[in-house]
Amino acid sequence: MHPRRWGSTQRAAKLPPEALALVELAFGPADDVIGDPADTTINDNALSPSSLNDQALDGLRACLGVNHVLTDAQSRASHTRGKSTPDLLRARADDLVDAPDAIVRPASHDEVTAIIEWAGQHGVAIVPFGGGTCVTGGLVARREGHSAIVSLDLTRMKRLIEVDHESMTATLEPGLRGPEAEALLAEHGLTLGHFPQSFEYATIGGFAATRSSGQSSAGYGRFDAMVVGLRVATPIGELTLGSAPATAAGPDLRQVILGSEGAFGVITGVRLRVRRLPEELSYEGWSWPDFEGGAQAIRSLAQSGHLPTVIRLSDEAETAINLADPEGIGSDNLGGCLMIVGHEGTPQDVARSRAITTELLSGLGGSALGSTPGEKWSHGRFDAPYLRDSLLDVGIFVETLETATFWSNRQALYDAVTEALRLHLPEKHLVLCHISHVYETGCSLYFTVATKFSGDALTSWHVAKSAVNDAIASVGATITHHHAIGTDHKPWLAKEVGPVGQSILRAIKQELDPDGIMNPGVMIP
Amino acid sequence: MHPRRWGSTQRAAKLPPEALALVELAFGPADDVIGDPADTTINDNALSPSSLNDQALDGLRACLGVNHVLTDAQSRASHTRGKSTPDLLRARADDLVDAPDAIVRPASHDEVTAIIEWAGQHGVAIVPFGGGTCVTGGLVARREGHSAIVSLDLTRMKRLIEVDHESMTATLEPGLRGPEAEALLAEHGLTLGHFPQSFEYATIGGFAATRSSGQSSAGYGRFDAMVVGLRVATPIGELTLGSAPATAAGPDLRQVILGSEGAFGVITGVRLRVRRLPEELSYEGWSWPDFEGGAQAIRSLAQSGHLPTVIRLSDEAETAINLADPEGIGSDNLGGCLMIVGHEGTPQDVARSRAITTELLSGLGGSALGSTPGEKWSHGRFDAPYLRDSLLDVGIFVETLETATFWSNRQALYDAVTEALRLHLPEKHLVLCHISHVYETGCSLYFTVATKFSGDALTSWHVAKSAVNDAIASVGATITHHHAIGTDHKPWLAKEVGPVGQSILRAIKQELDPDGIMNPGVMIP
Repeated sequence: MHPRRWGSTQRAAKLPPEALALVELAFGPADDVIGDPADTTINDNALSPSSLNDQALDGLRACLGVNHVLTDAQSRASHTRGKSTPDLLRARADDLVDAPDAIVRPASHDEVTAIIEWAGQHGVAIVPFGGGTCVTGGLVARREGHSAIVSLDLTRMKRLIEVDHESMTATLEPGLRGPEAEALLAEHGLTLGHFPQSFEYATIGGFAATRSSGQSSAGYGRFDAMVVGLRVATPIGELTLGSAPATAAGPDLRQVILGSEGAFGVITGVRLRVRRLPEELSYEGWSWPDFEGGAQAIRSLAQSGHLPTVIRLSDEAETAINLADPEGIGSDNLGGCLMIVGHEGTPQDVARSRAITTELLSGLGGSALGSTPGEKWSHGRFDAPYLRDSLLDVGIFVETLETATFWSNRQALYDAVTEALRLHLPEKHLVLCHISHVYETGCSLYFTVATKFSGDALTSWHVAKSAVNDAIASVGATITHHHAIGTDHKPWLAKEVGPVGQSILRAIKQELDPDGIMNPGVMIP
Repeated sequence: MHPRRWGSTQRAAKLPPEALALVELAFGPADDVIGDPADTTINDNALSPSSLNDQALDGLRACLGVNHVLTDAQSRASHTRGKSTPDLLRARADDLVDAPDAIVRPASHDEVTAIIEWAGQHGVAIVPFGGGTCVTGGLVARREGHSAIVSLDLTRMKRLIEVDHESMTATLEPGLRGPEAEALLAEHGLTLGHFPQSFEYATIGGFAATRSSGQSSAGYGRFDAMVVGLRVATPIGELTLGSAPATAAGPDLRQVILGSEGAFGVITGVRLRVRRLPEELSYEGWSWPDFEGGAQAIRSLAQSGHLPTVIRLSDEAETAINLADPEGIGSDNLGGCLMIVGHEGTPQDVARSRAITTELLSGLGGSALGSTPGEKWSHGRFDAPYLRDSLLDVGIFVETLETATFWSNRQALYDAVTEALRLHLPEKHLVLCHISHVYETGCSLYFTVATKFSGDALTSWHVAKSAVNDAIASVGATITHHHAIGTDHKPWLAKEVGPVGQSILRAIKQELDPDGIMNPGVMIP
């Protein structure tokens, strides 16, 4: 992806005039154009020269072939950092100091192993790179102590290795992007059902390494719940896990690799539980008088064992201004809180699920809005990052953050986060929230923030985000439900797992990566 | 429990005459009585003197009070080993060499911490002890390198610490036995729904430390899936985990503690997802022409998302001779394979679940047998270990073993295990099997073996069990689905996780327990 924008540059667009008018109403006159959707140049001067000389690179070229060791400006720029708003702002300011010195593109587990060996010999740090969609600084390795940094781009590893129809599992290579994986599985009538907002670009390996969670997690589960087997190339050798769906053979080491963010090794294969492609998809809207009522209804569905495939609930502010849908901005305000309910499966299963949820939600005070809001949500579900770019283009700062907690702590968490934002953002700001992932015992809260900073947005946001993180920690919630740790969340991971938990993580790191070459500085407190 | 028998000595019984007649038909004339149900003596001479002198014990007494540091023969004998058949045979042969030197009974996390500190200072090994129901040698710590072994009996820690009705979680102390935990939760209208065969004696801490799985796991999930939070006393300090139902904050360290079998520390609190007590319980029997047909039907239920609360399927041999039910031995042979299907919940949910499974199972070739087989199963579900004692009393060796794999590997696993047993057991033997736990991607296989060894049963069984373990490993299945590793399965855990997996386990062990005092020799390869 382009370092300054999300996704396809062809889809970059200016903010529609009616949306711009509303934005000016909310935040004051728009700035002169800060970003231009049509500008896709890379400023070569923003890149320091690669610190890897030809002699060093020849070792890599011998492993991978000359075509798969890249040092050109375009490649280095497009592998610089991830896609948090600060990442985009730095790129927009021509700050590419975190660019890797080279990009290597292995095609197999053995080539990954060869790269790791080479890096160990040369004191080079490795940053595993899939879709480059990380929003928590997970692609910014610590350079100190290393002669160079290479970005290990996995997107040539995109085979469907095996389909086991009887066990309903599929083994995939890590470089498959969401749509590529789904297309390969669809040929077999199968689906993962994993659709996070990053779906169009993020990869299988990245989903596993960061414990991704998709918008259909109520029905299909989190990504870590889909993983039944893993193959990992570590600096001390290969690790292959997954002898059964579940086991009592000691600690579950799959759960040590999931969430390890490249700090323990490179995931080179993932065996996943798959499902049959749904014959029918039915998304609908429900309206609730308030967030509390809708949240209690979701809790009731989860705890009675009747969750649909998709369920999400926007708070009053998010319902009023649906930033994910530029066309919708300024349309009639529904009032209350919008819930999206989706059912997928056989026609019988969809009918059964709809009947049960309709009965339960009606009984709990919800009002059915029919299929239009559901279809609109489904249509625009991957578009929000493009809108963010358009808003950044006119000087509006937009970012998201998320957390999760147990149901009894939901309101306290919501209050703590919104209060921290209120205290640390300019007076004119928007904070939108939705419940995005649901469990019997709790849920995640996903916040979207929009404001206009006067002065240094990066520093101002850093202060506000740190205050939010402190607030999350102060109520005992998790620092991240599905955005992972990266470098941004490390101090709060340390609090969350405590000194003994930190010791466990560091001990595993030291054992698997004694030279500290795997994504140094990321995740491990 | 008595070292020679399972459970309550009041429930120890001789084999009924009609069962004895059948056993003699199968295995030849019964031996003279080897064990007597009425004999509950402990042979003091079987115990070596405690290697802990009064001076050393005074330190413990200062922590816990004099009443909770025990060295009497009865206490030491009853904390010797677990309840595998080899454990019972050794005790029956007056072999109590693995008896701990003392039993300590803490009442709180802080007292556990004090014991661990004392043990570290004195070079004493600690064996955490809950129900004492382990069947894989997990209560037999390695004595070498330690001045003594203390059994850390957790059964005074039996409080229900907190009920969170909104989040549907309960925080329990580790020493609560299954029925005690259920009774406390029932006062709040709640249940764990965790009913392994060891239910009547095993404890919450043990369930967590060994990744137990109950007979209602299809509906309530494995124990590790119920755990949302953990408190652990380790030699390097306290570890508290569980900030949300699910998180992307690095590796899931809860899954490092679950299955750790006391080797990393002592679990002193467990926060668990709970469910409402079911208003209705309905268990029924289904008959299948063969094991394959029944297995495919279970797979179909699991993969269509319509698992009932309980599902298990006996193979032809287990269906013909239900060893779990002495009264049933010799009754009419149903033929084919018996499946138990149980539904629990509200009347509406039970009706809905029954309707769906009835439609699916009928369509797949099953024949409904009504509620009698289901009720009979439910009635006798915790009795098998008593029958084992009665059979051991007349010289019949009975033991169980279990494993799990993916569906496509089920038949190969079944064949490998039964063939290994056929080759290594005396000609006259029974091997019974059932599918006991079910997932979308696979299932567990639970085997019961009965035979009559001429000569040294311990050695003969060790040879046969090792061959079975090799067979399980050779087809890539897990060495244990819910019996854990203990000391018995260690060589096969090493194969299952490979050299890198072993390194991870040893690194965590070294970090958390640098002096190696926590259940030394158990689990870690």
